[in-house]
Formats: sequence, C-alpha cells, structure tokens
Amino acid sequence: MKEIMAIVRINRMNETKKALMNAGFSSVTATGRVLGRGKGLVDHKVLKAADEGNEYAAALLGEGPRLMSKRMLLLTVNDKDVEKAVETIMDANRTGKAGDGKIFVVDTPEVYRIRTGESGPSIVQ
Amino acid sequence: MKEIMAIVRINRMNETKKALMNAGFSSVTATGRVLGRGKGLVDHKVLKAADEGNEYAAALLGEGPRLMSKRMLLLTVNDKDVEKAVETIMDANRTGKAGDGKIFVVDTPEVYRIRTGESGPSIVQ
Amino acid sequence: MKEIMAIVRINRMNETKKALMNAGFSSVTATGRVLGRGKGLVDHKVLKAADEGNEYAAALLGEGPRLMSKRMLLLTVNDKDVEKAVETIMDANRTGKAGDGKIFVVDTPEVYRIRTGESGPSIVQ
Repeated sequence: MKEIMAIVRINRMNETKKALMNAGFSSVTATGRVLGRGKGLVDHKVLKAADEGNEYAAALLGEGPRLMSKRMLLLTVNDKDVEKAVETIMDANRTGKAGDGKIFVVDTPEVYRIRTGESGPSIVQ
Repeated sequence: MKEIMAIVRINRMNETKKALMNAGFSSVTATGRVLGRGKGLVDHKVLKAADEGNEYAAALLGEGPRLMSKRMLLLTVNDKDVEKAVETIMDANRTGKAGDGKIFVVDTPEVYRIRTGESGPSIVQ
Repeated sequence: MKEIMAIVRINRMNETKKALMNAGFSSVTATGRVLGRGKGLVDHKVLKAADEGNEYAAALLGEGPRLMSKRMLLLTVNDKDVEKAVETIMDANRTGKAGDGKIFVVDTPEVYRIRTGESGPSIVQ
C-alpha cells in the first residue's frame, strides 16, 4: 500500500475531494493549513506591492523563503491504484500556474481499521 | 523503524496518550485538527438535521464527501514494537462505531535527535 | 527520494527556513502547531509552578504525558542530499536543551509536480 500526501491550493480542496470520491477514493484526510514553498513559488501580489513601494510587502520579501498557505491531503491506496489517485488529484488541481502543489507517495506496509481491528489491503479503498 | 500515524477521535486523545505512556511509548506528536472521512463514515447529526429539513445540513450533504474533525498522532517505534503500539492505540480508541479511525504504518529508515545529533534505533522509544 | 519530517521549536522556524534556503533546499512545507513530547521532555515552567503550589500546573502534570507546542516541517530531497538537509536542520535547531526536537526520514518512492505532471528525482530540490 501507499500513502499519498498531496499539498494543494486551499481553494481546490472541495473540487479535489469530489473528484477523488467520484474516482472511488472515499477515505481521505485533510489537514488544516500548511505553509508551503515550491521552487519558483512566488506570491505575485506581494512582489507587485513591494515593487510599488509597500514596505510591509518588501519586508516579507526580505524574510527569505516565502511560504504560502496550502492544504495537505492524505490518502492511503493499494499499489495498483496509485496512478489513478495521482492523476485524479493532478486533474483537479492543475491550473498551469506556479503553486499548483506537489504529490508525494510514501511506502505504507500496513494499515489498520480501529473499529474492527482488521488490517491489510482489503480495508484500503 | 516505523512511523505510526493514527487518525483518531478528538475526544480520545488524552486517553490514547495515557495508554501509550503506560505502554512505554512516551514520545508522541499530535497534530491540530485534521478532517477525515473513512468509508461509510457519516455524520449522523447532519443527516438527521437534513432529514428534518435543515437547509444548512442539506447543503453540507450536497457537498460530496463529508469530512469529520479528527486528530492525527505520530509515533516512531522500533520494528519489534509496532504490534504493541498499534494494539495500544486500537484499545484506547475502539468504540465499535463508524469513525473510530485508522492507523498507518510507514517505513522510517532513519531518525535523529536534534539535541545530541544521535540517530538510530537506540533513540527511539 | 526521502521525505524529511522535522519536529522543531516554533521559534526556530524562520531560522530553519533561511538555513535550508541557503543550503539549496527551497521547497519546504510547514504545518501549523503540533503537540510533541519527546523522552524526558518536561515543561520546566509548569514543573516549577506545580512545585510552588500552583494548582493548575499540578493538574497539568497529573494529566500524564505533557505535550509541548512544536512545528512540523516537511521536505522532500534526493537520497544523496539527506545528510546535508538533516545537518542543516540540526544546526539551525540545536540549543542543547531538552525539546530541541527530532527528525524522521521516510522512504518516498515517487513525487509529482502537479503543474506540469513531471515526476521523479529531477523535480526534487
């Protein structure tokens, strides 16, 4: 099994959940806001404001790496479904602009359902 | 070593921490609220309210997958202690009702203690 | 590839981000507050207050494992850069006092950039 961690735009979460649901992935965990920074990720509003002389924006830029609010989504799937889940998340989140996010796939040798004590691939969506 | 990620009910966290402590697992990280949705997980209060004509509840239902507030607990253990840790978390969280949560076990090849720079199984509980 | 999860003091985050940036790791995700408890981790202020008869502090101590506010930092790197990233985080966070935090290294077989659909080591910093 694999744990899929996706860091996506906050305003794409509802769309992403619906798309995953429709693709048969109904078991999803979403975290609160996380602050992410990808390569080349720049908050253009802040850049523009700094260019126009806004001191607060300039101070933000001076702080080193800028982090942007994102949301993290966790999803465990069977190995055969990794590609489908990744494509579903990519389709629901691709705008083509910097800041679309990333998806990480992590090895998950075991999963347990607390209510019943069951484990293994059969309890994974 | 293994990282154990458990998604559990918010109101079981104190009990879970105590149970882990008593079982010898004192090093635990708990995240803020996460929003989870397992298979078949339904917020019955919302369903009931929607049945009774509450529009807000109906709107929630209409939104596709419903997410419920949970807490995530992270715990790194040596391979030989995975079973014990999983059982401790299951015992502290099983109510037998939908929404009891899930436990994920993730491969963790290395762990470091920042204070001393030590690494390896000996620094893991 | 490896996912590096570091649990560090909240007030070291800015320093840590700058240090990672300077070391060439610009793609970082920081979560909101997490509550952590390492071996031997004790909130000395609470202990002292309890010793001096503060009932609230004593109640906190009586609650079993005490959790302290931390921040979690996520970073995906290529295998050859794990050591460098770990050392950068350790240098930026070591005070030598209990509570400096821990670093976990997790296997990450695949990573995707949503904007372009690219995957693999080349998109990792």
